[in-house]
Amino acid sequence: MEEETLYRSLRLPHRPEGKLVLLVLDGVGDIATTATGYLTPLEAAVTPNLDELARASAMGRMTPVLPGITPGSGPGHLGLFGYDPAQFQVDRGVIEALGLGMDLQPGDVAARANFCTVNAEGVVTDRRAGRIDTELNRTLCRKLGAVRKIGETEIIVRHGRSHRFVVVFRGGGIAGPLPDSDPHREGLPMRPIAAENREERVERAAEVIARFCRQAMPLLSQDLPANGFLLRGIGSLPRIPGFEERFQLSAGAIAVYPMYRGLAQLIGMRNLEEERDIRKQFQQVLDEFENFDYFFIHVKGTDMAGEDGDFDGKVAIIEAVDRALPLLLRKRPLVLAITADHSTPAAMKSHSWHPQPVLLNSPVSGSDRLSRFTETCANRGSLGVFQSKYLIRLMMANAGLYGKFGA
Amino acid sequence: MEEETLYRSLRLPHRPEGKLVLLVLDGVGDIATTATGYLTPLEAAVTPNLDELARASAMGRMTPVLPGITPGSGPGHLGLFGYDPAQFQVDRGVIEALGLGMDLQPGDVAARANFCTVNAEGVVTDRRAGRIDTELNRTLCRKLGAVRKIGETEIIVRHGRSHRFVVVFRGGGIAGPLPDSDPHREGLPMRPIAAENREERVERAAEVIARFCRQAMPLLSQDLPANGFLLRGIGSLPRIPGFEERFQLSAGAIAVYPMYRGLAQLIGMRNLEEERDIRKQFQQVLDEFENFDYFFIHVKGTDMAGEDGDFDGKVAIIEAVDRALPLLLRKRPLVLAITADHSTPAAMKSHSWHPQPVLLNSPVSGSDRLSRFTETCANRGSLGVFQSKYLIRLMMANAGLYGKFGA
Repeated sequence: MEEETLYRSLRLPHRPEGKLVLLVLDGVGDIATTATGYLTPLEAAVTPNLDELARASAMGRMTPVLPGITPGSGPGHLGLFGYDPAQFQVDRGVIEALGLGMDLQPGDVAARANFCTVNAEGVVTDRRAGRIDTELNRTLCRKLGAVRKIGETEIIVRHGRSHRFVVVFRGGGIAGPLPDSDPHREGLPMRPIAAENREERVERAAEVIARFCRQAMPLLSQDLPANGFLLRGIGSLPRIPGFEERFQLSAGAIAVYPMYRGLAQLIGMRNLEEERDIRKQFQQVLDEFENFDYFFIHVKGTDMAGEDGDFDGKVAIIEAVDRALPLLLRKRPLVLAITADHSTPAAMKSHSWHPQPVLLNSPVSGSDRLSRFTETCANRGSLGVFQSKYLIRLMMANAGLYGKFGA
Repeated sequence: MEEETLYRSLRLPHRPEGKLVLLVLDGVGDIATTATGYLTPLEAAVTPNLDELARASAMGRMTPVLPGITPGSGPGHLGLFGYDPAQFQVDRGVIEALGLGMDLQPGDVAARANFCTVNAEGVVTDRRAGRIDTELNRTLCRKLGAVRKIGETEIIVRHGRSHRFVVVFRGGGIAGPLPDSDPHREGLPMRPIAAENREERVERAAEVIARFCRQAMPLLSQDLPANGFLLRGIGSLPRIPGFEERFQLSAGAIAVYPMYRGLAQLIGMRNLEEERDIRKQFQQVLDEFENFDYFFIHVKGTDMAGEDGDFDGKVAIIEAVDRALPLLLRKRPLVLAITADHSTPAAMKSHSWHPQPVLLNSPVSGSDRLSRFTETCANRGSLGVFQSKYLIRLMMANAGLYGKFGA
């Protein structure tokens, strides 16, 4: 039997008798290096509240996708939400659109775009147009916005940072994916937009997008170095089963950054108001406690500090979370999981493949008698190293939502 | 290559040069909670002999099926015997029949049954007939036994406890599975027995079983509250490859309870005489030492104590096993695995999904230099957390039964 079918067959019909809370400290997992005396930020931080929780919890580590695979935020979070990231892929165009806070609809096709430099022969000489600044990007996107419609398809252009922007093609019976127009190397001409299969909606999308390029590109002819643009990751909003349908849990998302709000929206979680302060985020759980079965709380600071190589900054965010933790526990979740979507080692200044630590606390989680929520403690936990996609299953088992398999 | 094909291709043709012994302490895995000072029964027990063995062994923990899934005894043991429990499913009727010690044969279809109360309109008003006592159940089953044959199919009715019994339909070219006649809710009529596919043997089974119900039900008409019965989990003896054929190991089973003897029989292990005392069970291994390659020893007491929430009782059984262990080791197995089919935490009074600890000892198991056979020690073992279905592979590797894969 397929895993998903098996889990589904065991789901008891009742709602949980308490709340399931997933607290994501984005990128909190780290590695110990000589530079910091072989300490990780979780080890260097002073965290009396997390320590107390850890002593009563089960722990382990999670592989976000597969060993050695470094996930982006999309796959990282899809795993935490119980979707195999290798199976449910979201095209980059869609992720970027969600990341810019665009409200995608079924039938939309989204593309990442870069401003670029092309010469008189149509050869791409700079794929990033000298990394123009965001202000100029905004102005150029306004120019492109003059193309509002191609046939039945509405065009929405939204600027991003530096040379990056997003184009959403809405309606008119179109679908992705389509190959990039980006040649991925300088010195080559742009690739024509063309469908790779004979699916009618995909062929129509190719036609619409090719026409958009022909109409929009001349609008930039005077804007050297940004006198052209390249499209990448052109794709449709994917068909992902809704979280509530899949797990029979109503879910509220408490996230600040558009990317995470977009992912939550993609699977039908309800986004609560944006609150940047960790204490205010935790207060939202208390305020909305009766309205959802499951809460997803996203704390971004740990990842940003990791990306910046800012070890001390990462420590500070962890300590801020620790100080706020008693507030979150004021209404005790039935099941609480604290983890990351992936590691972002400060020493690497980037996401990585290193399994992130996970703490699971419930009245039946058992205690692994480990003293702290750290990587080395988690290594000795009863959960072992497992794929992120199983976390929701363990949370649901701890909430008493699965019946016994077989006699 | 399929896993099974790969393992099979590596199986060396020789018999093992010693014995492989699997000692199952049913449900021995547990969780540490505040109620017991964060100790588990394995930790609270005084086990000098297990401790000595642990120091020379590899350890780890096993997921019986998949993360968060709580197995019944059937799937729990199939995993230990090297069968993926999600792939090899045994219908509940078959498990119950085996559990009552019935000798099922290929071509049999077995159903669980409940006595129930139906009103004049044929509506089920009590799905358990007020949980009648076992003595009355026995009398009523004798009444139903008057229907001995339907066409070519022999009928065998066997009483269980309280309102539960089993019906086996033998021969006549029939096969399951069939949907339940149990409406699974009171206030609804019984469901008609009907095949869900057009397979000839399944349709014939539906016809035979429907006729059985029509003939047998009136025999109970005066027996309020047990004036009807419901059938559930109607299924055939599954096609499971025999243990000896699959692993090229002859196997003897030393189990007391009919359920485990039934499962052993299902995969072709030879059941030795029933001995309830742990020392006598171990003595059976010594007595039969030359007659089998593999021994499965089943100790039930740990699970029963767990189900009863009897922490001290569970400790006592573990200590009894420990005291008897030197007897088992008098003829040293080449490979000895000690584990459970699942955890049965005393605090939960039920089976659970928590990975059970496993100890693996052989001249080449290596030692993880851990001091005791406990959950927390096992968390730090070299075997990690792995699916139960791989245990037999590790045992066979330790017995030198697999050749090298590739050059």
